Amino acid sequence: MHISEIIHPNQLHGLSLRQLEAIARQIREKHLQTVATSGGHLGPGLGVVELTLALYQTLDLDRDKVVWDVGHQAYPHKLITGRYDRFQTLRQKDGIAGYLKRCENRFDHFGAGHASTSISAALGMALARDAKGEDFKCVAVIGDGALTGGMALEAINHAGHLPDTNLMVVLNDNEMSISPNVGAISRYLNKVRLSPPVQFLSDNLEEQFKHLPFFGETLTPEMERVKEGMKRLTVPKVGAVIEELGFKYFGPIDGHNLAELISTFKQAHKVPGPVLVHVATVKGKGYDIAEQDRVGYHAQNPFDLATGKAIPSSKPKPPKYAKVFAHTLTKLAENDPRIIGITAAMATGTGLDKLCQKLPKQYIDVGIAEQHAVTLAAGLACEGLRPVAAIYSTFLQRAFDQVVHDVCIQNLPVFFCLDRAGIVGADGPTHQGLYDIAYLRCIPNMVVMAPKDEAELQRMVVTGVNYTEGPIAVRYPRGNGIGVPLMEEGWEPLEIGKSELLRNGDDVLLIGYGTMVATAMQVAEILSEHGIEATVVNARFVKPLDMETLAPLAQRIGRVVTLEEGCLMGGFGSAVAEELLDRDVVLPVKRFGVPDRLVDHAKPDEAKASLGLTGSQIAEQIRTTFFSSAAQPASFSTAS
Amino acid sequence: MHISEIIHPNQLHGLSLRQLEAIARQIREKHLQTVATSGGHLGPGLGVVELTLALYQTLDLDRDKVVWDVGHQAYPHKLITGRYDRFQTLRQKDGIAGYLKRCENRFDHFGAGHASTSISAALGMALARDAKGEDFKCVAVIGDGALTGGMALEAINHAGHLPDTNLMVVLNDNEMSISPNVGAISRYLNKVRLSPPVQFLSDNLEEQFKHLPFFGETLTPEMERVKEGMKRLTVPKVGAVIEELGFKYFGPIDGHNLAELISTFKQAHKVPGPVLVHVATVKGKGYDIAEQDRVGYHAQNPFDLATGKAIPSSKPKPPKYAKVFAHTLTKLAENDPRIIGITAAMATGTGLDKLCQKLPKQYIDVGIAEQHAVTLAAGLACEGLRPVAAIYSTFLQRAFDQVVHDVCIQNLPVFFCLDRAGIVGADGPTHQGLYDIAYLRCIPNMVVMAPKDEAELQRMVVTGVNYTEGPIAVRYPRGNGIGVPLMEEGWEPLEIGKSELLRNGDDVLLIGYGTMVATAMQVAEILSEHGIEATVVNARFVKPLDMETLAPLAQRIGRVVTLEEGCLMGGFGSAVAEELLDRDVVLPVKRFGVPDRLVDHAKPDEAKASLGLTGSQIAEQIRTTFFSSAAQPASFSTAS
Repeated sequence: MHISEIIHPNQLHGLSLRQLEAIARQIREKHLQTVATSGGHLGPGLGVVELTLALYQTLDLDRDKVVWDVGHQAYPHKLITGRYDRFQTLRQKDGIAGYLKRCENRFDHFGAGHASTSISAALGMALARDAKGEDFKCVAVIGDGALTGGMALEAINHAGHLPDTNLMVVLNDNEMSISPNVGAISRYLNKVRLSPPVQFLSDNLEEQFKHLPFFGETLTPEMERVKEGMKRLTVPKVGAVIEELGFKYFGPIDGHNLAELISTFKQAHKVPGPVLVHVATVKGKGYDIAEQDRVGYHAQNPFDLATGKAIPSSKPKPPKYAKVFAHTLTKLAENDPRIIGITAAMATGTGLDKLCQKLPKQYIDVGIAEQHAVTLAAGLACEGLRPVAAIYSTFLQRAFDQVVHDVCIQNLPVFFCLDRAGIVGADGPTHQGLYDIAYLRCIPNMVVMAPKDEAELQRMVVTGVNYTEGPIAVRYPRGNGIGVPLMEEGWEPLEIGKSELLRNGDDVLLIGYGTMVATAMQVAEILSEHGIEATVVNARFVKPLDMETLAPLAQRIGRVVTLEEGCLMGGFGSAVAEELLDRDVVLPVKRFGVPDRLVDHAKPDEAKASLGLTGSQIAEQIRTTFFSSAAQPASFSTAS
Repeated sequence: MHISEIIHPNQLHGLSLRQLEAIARQIREKHLQTVATSGGHLGPGLGVVELTLALYQTLDLDRDKVVWDVGHQAYPHKLITGRYDRFQTLRQKDGIAGYLKRCENRFDHFGAGHASTSISAALGMALARDAKGEDFKCVAVIGDGALTGGMALEAINHAGHLPDTNLMVVLNDNEMSISPNVGAISRYLNKVRLSPPVQFLSDNLEEQFKHLPFFGETLTPEMERVKEGMKRLTVPKVGAVIEELGFKYFGPIDGHNLAELISTFKQAHKVPGPVLVHVATVKGKGYDIAEQDRVGYHAQNPFDLATGKAIPSSKPKPPKYAKVFAHTLTKLAENDPRIIGITAAMATGTGLDKLCQKLPKQYIDVGIAEQHAVTLAAGLACEGLRPVAAIYSTFLQRAFDQVVHDVCIQNLPVFFCLDRAGIVGADGPTHQGLYDIAYLRCIPNMVVMAPKDEAELQRMVVTGVNYTEGPIAVRYPRGNGIGVPLMEEGWEPLEIGKSELLRNGDDVLLIGYGTMVATAMQVAEILSEHGIEATVVNARFVKPLDMETLAPLAQRIGRVVTLEEGCLMGGFGSAVAEELLDRDVVLPVKRFGVPDRLVDHAKPDEAKASLGLTGSQIAEQIRTTFFSSAAQPASFSTAS
């Protein structure tokens, strides 16, 4: 059987080990080819090929539910659930998503792009099953990296308390999140991986005790305790901890040995209550280059399969925002030992690996634990340090309460650096950084900035580090800057709450925020071609808003347009509208941003076009709204 | 020495046990008297009197830092840090706060009202200390209830990975959060409390092994393993788990034995790296009535010390919103087994204890674990159940990402019931439910309702339970309803996104949301006395907003006023302003709500008055803004 014939995972039932091994090879081949061409997550999927096949051979996927944590490890799952033929469309507009989605496939039982949610979701399904009096299996597959996320531990705490609720947790232990794991749990699991299961006293323990010379037939209470301790020697150490938390423990087992996986899963399915199967896998398994560099090949842009080298882009690109951020911060940190960069398992993504290399003492990686990261930063700030919490916009959602309760209410000077703010592209809805303006600006004491380009990001990093009056945040996009010159040093902090006037015109006021300032300038150019002259302001701050500048401009010009890369509800334009109304400046305000819907995976430019957010689309909208008598549709559409 | 003489905790240094016992009695006396008079948290503080005194006798509070988790257990701390004289102002406007606040006292090293933050904060302080090359102690005091919160476990995972960072965690184990604890960790701690430390093999272990008959001088690898197992018998079981996570373990110790506490703290301070001291306390210790009913006396309204009975209020009050919610939900659940109520350790506060009593199978308490609660609900919804997540507005902040990522992106029908939305009164800034409108309405697929009174809450509960198209939320206030008649059954669901017209008038349009609808009606009455006739609309939904009704009304009347009990930034009024502008309805909109600042503890009415949110204040503002020529200040102020 070839993998292309598998459209239902139950077709794996009854396949021999040899047949499964052939399927495994075919999965790896397709997986590698596709990611090499389209980019995507490489290491995680390659590591769970055997795990997936073995697990699915022991399940009935028409009834049983499997929840894959994060979902970036679920490409093998996708390839055996009817998506082989379309797999080369991975992460492209209208193609197969890079994560699981309930609306994409009926075997995607729960979607996820963030870590640590799977046990909660699977337990919910299990409790529902029992409430309905039904009988099927619920399985969560979670990486050891995701296990450091607090909600996974909350779920284990709950599930371990329910001895009558059948639930299987498969721990995919590859010793990594994106980076090597940090934390006591990870260290502990590594120890277990190195110490094979000890079974020598497990069988017929009572009998064996009777024959030990100093125990005898009747055990004193103290000897009973010794016996209990002995019993604990019969399972590996991690088993003891997991079992104290109410789970039956199986493992560690070799995650690339199909026979061992299948027999263990079969055995574990028979055990009632919560069960944990500890599977030791190798990230990138089957592709030597990825096995050697497990951080580098976690996820990839298109690359050459033979060499593993990235395919160079046709022309050199400006540096990434993340790189500019990290470079600037590291420069500042060299001269200021109070600066401490904090990441939650995103060292390479945020660029903080650079800080770690240069100034390891001024760098903290807390693992996948955004909540802890933020409150830890609050603690550092209490003692006069300058904590810089670099967390993606979408992941800071995980720490919203800590931002409110621990940082803002106490007005502590923590500097939040939100990478991936705005439209993120191929990662899709779970990763869009669209809500941060709305969820941050409503909190008292918070200052929120966004740079118009990578050079302004440098100045905002300086501004954030130097601002000691309370919390401050900067949001900046995923990907490359727009190519403006950068400074190596000598950056000046910006004045808090002060905007920048970029262009003068009497017909319409365009107020841009962050990346949309450049778009506003494009819009102004297009409008100018049609005889409409725009004033363009780079707001820089959504909070505090520079109403001293904006209100008089708005009043004089009479037509206001706001542009942002974030949700319109409660966002930047909403802030402008609020402040104008509060000042009794009653004017038409046309807001451009992301409307109230999910934004699917696609290239950022494609996504923006589908949302009507390109310069020409916005210019046309403005002309229709404000200047309909002056509209010249024919010439306009060629100009755009 | 009398407690009133203690204004600095270092004055405890050198006091004898007898003197400390006297102080302990005085703390309890003042604590009880004050809470009996003012209301407040009773059980938590009484349980840690000796713990506080013993800990502070071993610390130098001019240098060392103590972070109290939640802070409701910190009344004894307050009484020995210079607040004895003012303690009777507890939880009253301008008085002593019910939680810790950095701005209230220099010994309040970190403020908190939410659980599970202390270890992160204390670890942050410890890392800052080491970065600065300083030397002081950092201590987190955390309850066993708070230990189920994921972020506490994230912090333990991080701290346990840092063997060179001195940090003490004091586990105040009273077997409770507000309710008895749930979860595997709690069960485990209880087991340990029942099994006293085993020390029989601890001293000179190697020597003892040599004298055991079957071990001998040279140990085989297998016998080495047996020895390792034996070592684990020398600490209690929890010690083994905690020590595997990188902490040195001390305990369990009697939390009401000053001598044992002091000697253990002294010993533990000498141990480098992370240390956990497990203290077994009794909630409500020293007040028999509270010891007997630890749920009932967690926190109290004013009561009679002799009998423990609440002092009846002068006149009967309408039922609490929480009670109406729980009663209605329970009624519905009796006829619909798909309904499952979920609480995160707030059974009594949310009223769900009623559901638990009647229909225990349709009730889940996950412990202090809001994140898990929400994703568990998502899992339940996947399987066709009707999960109802009853979580306070302020605590749902903890699960913001789960609301976005697990519920809304997947458009799963989870019903969120946000109690304590709006101004909460005596609990102060950490508990204000002011941000939920802003943080919920920006998420695609979400529906957000608020009832004008307790009868409408009943209908909204029915609406939420019957809405299966996606997520839906209802926010309602802390405290009592306004006294409208309730229905026992036969509730009709509301039409989603449909408002209610309450009053007609041509001069101004008042759009109220939730509790502020009643205020809007008051405002209309006052305005009417001045010849200004208002139309009043109960919006019912902030999302979707009923613009079909509101836009034409606004256009016809020409003056719009919005009223809400939530933050103005991104809130209800902001939504109205957005939608009007999007429809090119350009009109003055005056928004009333909570401005961009923290709201301190005070009675809700006092807080509202300080924010200008009473009916008469708003009426006056409206007249000044819109009808200044018609203003009659003198007669107006008497009318209000």
